[in-house]
Amino acid sequence: MQQQISIITIGVADLARSKHFYGEGFGWSPVFENAEIFFFQMNGLMLGCFLKPSLEADMGRPLLAVAGAYSLAHNVESEAAVIAVMNRLAQAGGRIVRPADAPLHGGFRGYVADPDDHAWEIAFNPAWTIDAQGHVTFGI
Amino acid sequence: MQQQISIITIGVADLARSKHFYGEGFGWSPVFENAEIFFFQMNGLMLGCFLKPSLEADMGRPLLAVAGAYSLAHNVESEAAVIAVMNRLAQAGGRIVRPADAPLHGGFRGYVADPDDHAWEIAFNPAWTIDAQGHVTFGI
Repeated sequence: MQQQISIITIGVADLARSKHFYGEGFGWSPVFENAEIFFFQMNGLMLGCFLKPSLEADMGRPLLAVAGAYSLAHNVESEAAVIAVMNRLAQAGGRIVRPADAPLHGGFRGYVADPDDHAWEIAFNPAWTIDAQGHVTFGI
Repeated sequence: MQQQISIITIGVADLARSKHFYGEGFGWSPVFENAEIFFFQMNGLMLGCFLKPSLEADMGRPLLAVAGAYSLAHNVESEAAVIAVMNRLAQAGGRIVRPADAPLHGGFRGYVADPDDHAWEIAFNPAWTIDAQGHVTFGI
């Protein structure tokens, strides 16, 4: 089977609020939107922002928590870019969960929660390769 | 900024149990592992399985819920493949959350929870393109 993820779908309370955060914070444009979901075309997969009741209905699993045991990461090219992106996300309605610092395993990273408390790690990792299309390759 | 996600990190209780589920269920091999995390090299991003206390410590946000308001999707080439993958995941320790059926927006999909209750949508969507490297492109 392909080692492939097609979509990350996150549950959100307010589509307009989420569009502002992802549009103004990350600068991303949706590829599709309707009254209950919008998608970003990412690096070989989609990020979907889906109204939480609709996600619960689609999954057949009501009363989902937010702020669950996962994080999404967006890697950038330098420590300075980590700080700049985190500040831009905070200005767009995000919340700094952990200010950026250097973990023991190397690199530099912090965490920002989106308006629904989904955590984004903003990271610089000099050992990882990111090509022009945003495709990421593991390195040590 | 690139429309790019570098990592999806999920919190897990038991690394061996998760390796069994992802290894036997999806047939995936880790690119890196140590005593608290392992990574799969996916289609231009990583999937990380990180011990939940370690993720909480790294994020600086304790007592994370699991089963949160998000899902991960793996798209396959046919309705029959959706059923086959879901059965294989269930045999590897997953739980069928929603048996596969056809949603109003088209295609065919069901949901399986991994051993830590992270939801995977297994889907067939004939309008979406998936290339040989697993890179997914939106279509209607």
